Amino acid sequence: MNRFEPNLRIPGPTALPPSVRAAGARQMINHRGPEFAAMLDRILTRMKPYFGTTGDMAILSCAGTGGLEAAVVNVLSPGDRVLAVSIGAFGDRFAKIATTYGADVTKLAVEWGEAADPAEVRAALAAEPAPGYKAVFLTHNETSTGVMNPIPEIAAAIREVDDNALILVDSVSALGAVPFEMDAWGIDIVITGSQKAWMAAPGLAMVAASDRAWAAMETATMPRFYLDLHAHRDSHAKGQTPWTPALAVVYQVDEGLELMEREGATAVFARHETCAAAARAGLRALGFELFADQRFASRTVTAVRLPEGLDWKAFNDGVKRRGVILAGGQGKIAGHIFRLGHLGSVTLAEMLDAIGVIEEVSLEHDRPVEAGAALAAAQRAALEVMGALAPVKA
Amino acid sequence: MNRFEPNLRIPGPTALPPSVRAAGARQMINHRGPEFAAMLDRILTRMKPYFGTTGDMAILSCAGTGGLEAAVVNVLSPGDRVLAVSIGAFGDRFAKIATTYGADVTKLAVEWGEAADPAEVRAALAAEPAPGYKAVFLTHNETSTGVMNPIPEIAAAIREVDDNALILVDSVSALGAVPFEMDAWGIDIVITGSQKAWMAAPGLAMVAASDRAWAAMETATMPRFYLDLHAHRDSHAKGQTPWTPALAVVYQVDEGLELMEREGATAVFARHETCAAAARAGLRALGFELFADQRFASRTVTAVRLPEGLDWKAFNDGVKRRGVILAGGQGKIAGHIFRLGHLGSVTLAEMLDAIGVIEEVSLEHDRPVEAGAALAAAQRAALEVMGALAPVKA
Repeated sequence: MNRFEPNLRIPGPTALPPSVRAAGARQMINHRGPEFAAMLDRILTRMKPYFGTTGDMAILSCAGTGGLEAAVVNVLSPGDRVLAVSIGAFGDRFAKIATTYGADVTKLAVEWGEAADPAEVRAALAAEPAPGYKAVFLTHNETSTGVMNPIPEIAAAIREVDDNALILVDSVSALGAVPFEMDAWGIDIVITGSQKAWMAAPGLAMVAASDRAWAAMETATMPRFYLDLHAHRDSHAKGQTPWTPALAVVYQVDEGLELMEREGATAVFARHETCAAAARAGLRALGFELFADQRFASRTVTAVRLPEGLDWKAFNDGVKRRGVILAGGQGKIAGHIFRLGHLGSVTLAEMLDAIGVIEEVSLEHDRPVEAGAALAAAQRAALEVMGALAPVKA
Repeated sequence: MNRFEPNLRIPGPTALPPSVRAAGARQMINHRGPEFAAMLDRILTRMKPYFGTTGDMAILSCAGTGGLEAAVVNVLSPGDRVLAVSIGAFGDRFAKIATTYGADVTKLAVEWGEAADPAEVRAALAAEPAPGYKAVFLTHNETSTGVMNPIPEIAAAIREVDDNALILVDSVSALGAVPFEMDAWGIDIVITGSQKAWMAAPGLAMVAASDRAWAAMETATMPRFYLDLHAHRDSHAKGQTPWTPALAVVYQVDEGLELMEREGATAVFARHETCAAAARAGLRALGFELFADQRFASRTVTAVRLPEGLDWKAFNDGVKRRGVILAGGQGKIAGHIFRLGHLGSVTLAEMLDAIGVIEEVSLEHDRPVEAGAALAAAQRAALEVMGALAPVKA
């Protein structure tokens, strides 16, 4: 980050590290040759531990939404009962895809800003007559609200009452940034996207499936061709993709994983936690009300309510003019919040820069801000996560 | 091209020009901001003339196969009668997608290496009881055989007997390299892909639709979400894409179109014609039998039969060692042909290099080749297309 390049603080696409950018400029190769096969193998090998699986996964050339669609259409049949737990815009989207393909969807809609309550999910499953739901949809990190669902707790609650339901988890904007253990937690499908924690450009969705999910694909009858996961698994086994892959993005994901390998997963997770803590503390010190229930605050994106009377357009223009790119709200909370992304290549320096710029513009807009206090708060919060300070009470 | 970089002569992904490679290394931006909107608008404006349309088109983040699927599922309903004219592996794939989604497909299978006969297509349509086929599928350039169908003649033949059938054309590996006039020819949907004539990495499919096709989408009931063309059209009107686009590839397509703009469409087409003529003449002079009916030889890829007794693996290894990357056969002719791609950024110099290397390896394999004759033939054929020589009889 420097002032000759914007500080891209949207929750994806995320800023690319220099070596990832360089990878995007590589010349094309034969995607049916040995060089591609070696790269694909390397990516699969390095990515699976982030899913927490030893099973098979597929790399699809599409956006995260295509990955969600792949999850739905490969394991479900029209008429299948689905419990879609939605805590925001992406949970709604997941449900809508299933409805579009003829699933019989019951939505468990949680108030935006809140996480799903494991007990409520368990109750919803218990209330369903036999044979129960065919699948439960969960959003790991709800990008639209900055809430991260407690997936292991919810999955455990599901399994208490239902051993058979497939659990599908949209982790597009979380996987790679926080620990995940799909095998251990009994999750059946997990989806992520190249432009989030993986530090690459958008264009690839990665989908991992449990043995039970792979088996469900044998009988699922929703139509699929481009997004057929079996075709991808068969092709991956030969070091290829069934259709021409988004090769430049494959190069970038390969390089992103190389950087993550060097940093180490634990350090990657700690960096995200540190940046998230700095974001929350800094924004709070600037007088913004955090949108998410802070017990379930996302480690990859922070949403805050727009204060009464703030001219968001003018405010955001001021922030943008200073090189910091924020995201507005999505869906029904557009115009009511703004979001600060902190995932992928994010560094504490970038968070401090963003907080500093937001403070500067806040002063310009006569908001009641004590100069420097937000940066001090952000730094203290970060140091606390790093273990360099004793815990500070909020 | 130089010997420090392979001469990638597969029919896509095609080699990227330096400025396109550089575009692939650009930093991410907000895909919901004004910079993206301007880029999208520029791409749509520059690309439509290559389709020969003033109608609306969509840019999807997927491979060409995803574009074919989008064409199918947006305008058809399960049970719809479809005439799928197939002249090779990609024609078969187009038909299979429709079958997968429940269309009632009649395949008009043409012998591989041949083009579709307009009279046969007309007869097939005439034989169908009222109300006739809902759609006819055509492949413009069959990448697997090196045959280019005479689309205007086939479309005219269709219209002689059927005013209503939607005509869907897979032009993934042709559009941008040869003239096309979808509005004038009465074509309803045309699909192309970023990694072919457009000189960019794979990852984007571009789909243009006629007013009639857009209207058909209102009632078509095949399920679609990620590939929904209406969602793309609505989003494009706001300078966005409905889902996160493969941004790095969008940068590259934008730059590829900039290069095509500077070169001029007429010159781009002439360059492809020149390179194709050189490829055919050179390979023929090397004693290879061209696979395609030469009246319908593709201007973007040339396929030749593997001669009896030639050890293709050893031969191809020799070619590859010298830096030229050829493509083998696909589908049922795998092991029987090889293919030399000449599309996108291709130059005559690259064709001469490829011919020279194939000659060198041919000599090594004791094939009856006169040293230098193939290059002379290729050069003469190219000069003839350029108008620098009087026509030479083959």
